[in-house]
Amino acid sequence: MANPARTLFILSDHTGITLEHLVKTLISQFDDMCCERMVLPFLDSPEKIEAALREIDAAAREDDAPPVVFSSIVDDVLRSRLQQADAEVFDIFDTFLPRLSAAIGVPSSGHVGLSHGIGDPNHYDRRVDAVNFALNFDDGSRLRGLDEADLILIGVSRSGKTPTCLYLAMQYAVRAANFPLTEDDFLHGRLPDALHAHRERLFGLTIAPDRLHRIREERRPGSGYASLAQCRTEVSAAEDLFRDKTIPFLDSTAVSIEELAIEIMQRVGVERYY
Amino acid sequence: MANPARTLFILSDHTGITLEHLVKTLISQFDDMCCERMVLPFLDSPEKIEAALREIDAAAREDDAPPVVFSSIVDDVLRSRLQQADAEVFDIFDTFLPRLSAAIGVPSSGHVGLSHGIGDPNHYDRRVDAVNFALNFDDGSRLRGLDEADLILIGVSRSGKTPTCLYLAMQYAVRAANFPLTEDDFLHGRLPDALHAHRERLFGLTIAPDRLHRIREERRPGSGYASLAQCRTEVSAAEDLFRDKTIPFLDSTAVSIEELAIEIMQRVGVERYY
Repeated sequence: MANPARTLFILSDHTGITLEHLVKTLISQFDDMCCERMVLPFLDSPEKIEAALREIDAAAREDDAPPVVFSSIVDDVLRSRLQQADAEVFDIFDTFLPRLSAAIGVPSSGHVGLSHGIGDPNHYDRRVDAVNFALNFDDGSRLRGLDEADLILIGVSRSGKTPTCLYLAMQYAVRAANFPLTEDDFLHGRLPDALHAHRERLFGLTIAPDRLHRIREERRPGSGYASLAQCRTEVSAAEDLFRDKTIPFLDSTAVSIEELAIEIMQRVGVERYY
Repeated sequence: MANPARTLFILSDHTGITLEHLVKTLISQFDDMCCERMVLPFLDSPEKIEAALREIDAAAREDDAPPVVFSSIVDDVLRSRLQQADAEVFDIFDTFLPRLSAAIGVPSSGHVGLSHGIGDPNHYDRRVDAVNFALNFDDGSRLRGLDEADLILIGVSRSGKTPTCLYLAMQYAVRAANFPLTEDDFLHGRLPDALHAHRERLFGLTIAPDRLHRIREERRPGSGYASLAQCRTEVSAAEDLFRDKTIPFLDSTAVSIEELAIEIMQRVGVERYY
């Protein structure tokens, strides 16, 4: 049976990013995706709340089923207005703050948008610096300054190194460099010279040859570089090298950037700044 | 008065990213940061749960105040074991799912880690493709294919274009290119030729001249490029150009990448894929 048409609203006085992720997690627990999602960020005035309420009421009239509203709006007045919406309202602060406040014995303050704003400018600058670092030290493009890396990802071309480095930088201010492994390294069964001094910060990425083949085919269709035989040879040689040099490694084939990042930080023991 | 030493645990059977953000949002509502935070991801077996419980019990003994535990663990058996921890336990599924399930009339399923895994492979690949797009179309480095961009950020060098494009790509699979504005553009008071065909997808970034000066000084200390006078001239010319060509723009000075991304998507009306 098809689900009734229903709209799920995500209301925030700021970016709404946190709430979007939370709702995604909660919704993932239902086999049938329940609703059309609608994110309304930056609702920080009575006028904007009224406009949001009009959208909610329109959905209540037009959909088959009543809207569901998640809110991370902080201001008390705006929040209480929201409770009058013709919808089931989940307010994350109402849900958690009273019990959390009691548990830690500290009253809450009512600040808006602290978690995805600039926050501590030093922390924020560190993230932007880390992104620049990842860009500068992408694909072995620079050797001088490599000792400033928190970690160095190595692997064959297109095994997922760059997006993972950028994610680590963007989200956790981790300075992650990456370095390709090439024919020459495999031929001699050794690490690139530039990496010898950084053994304890190396982490390998590998990937299923057929997946690598498909990725490389999109980039250079029909090339030797993209051939399945070449992909098999490189992946196998890279994994041999990781094992031989006891470099920890992960298979990126069926794993998201987020999963890779969290697992790599945990295994290398990188300090997160956030 | 100093807060008592207390540990806040974030337990997840997967990356824990969503829960970390939620906790950060909740904690931001308390003026005094309450606790040392400890993230324990990938707790997906009874053994790992027992190890986590030992850490929680140790904190309960050693800290001045009882631990606070947030959990997004899905498995019922692991969750019920966790309830026996010597701590105040906040379980986000217990908190939301019963009421949400009732509201939408669908039973929940008990799937682990769907929100930061690969999920729909097409969506995931689209994100990785978008990151590659942002890297290929960074800083005006490529013109051919620019018509595939969902949006094009323009602004003076170091105004925040690159990290914003990467964030849009990584999180929302938005194909964002960026293009620098240069002396030559300002001299003629016009947009770079390559951008004329893409007027409706342009978005400007500006920045306070003194902030730009500090950023450029770190990159090229003492250069004309970094001088405050040069920064003032460029910023003023860029803003004149945005106004003259009616290109929407934002000031990145005190605004995070996340805030820029959300506001830009909203204003340009870019479709998010996620």
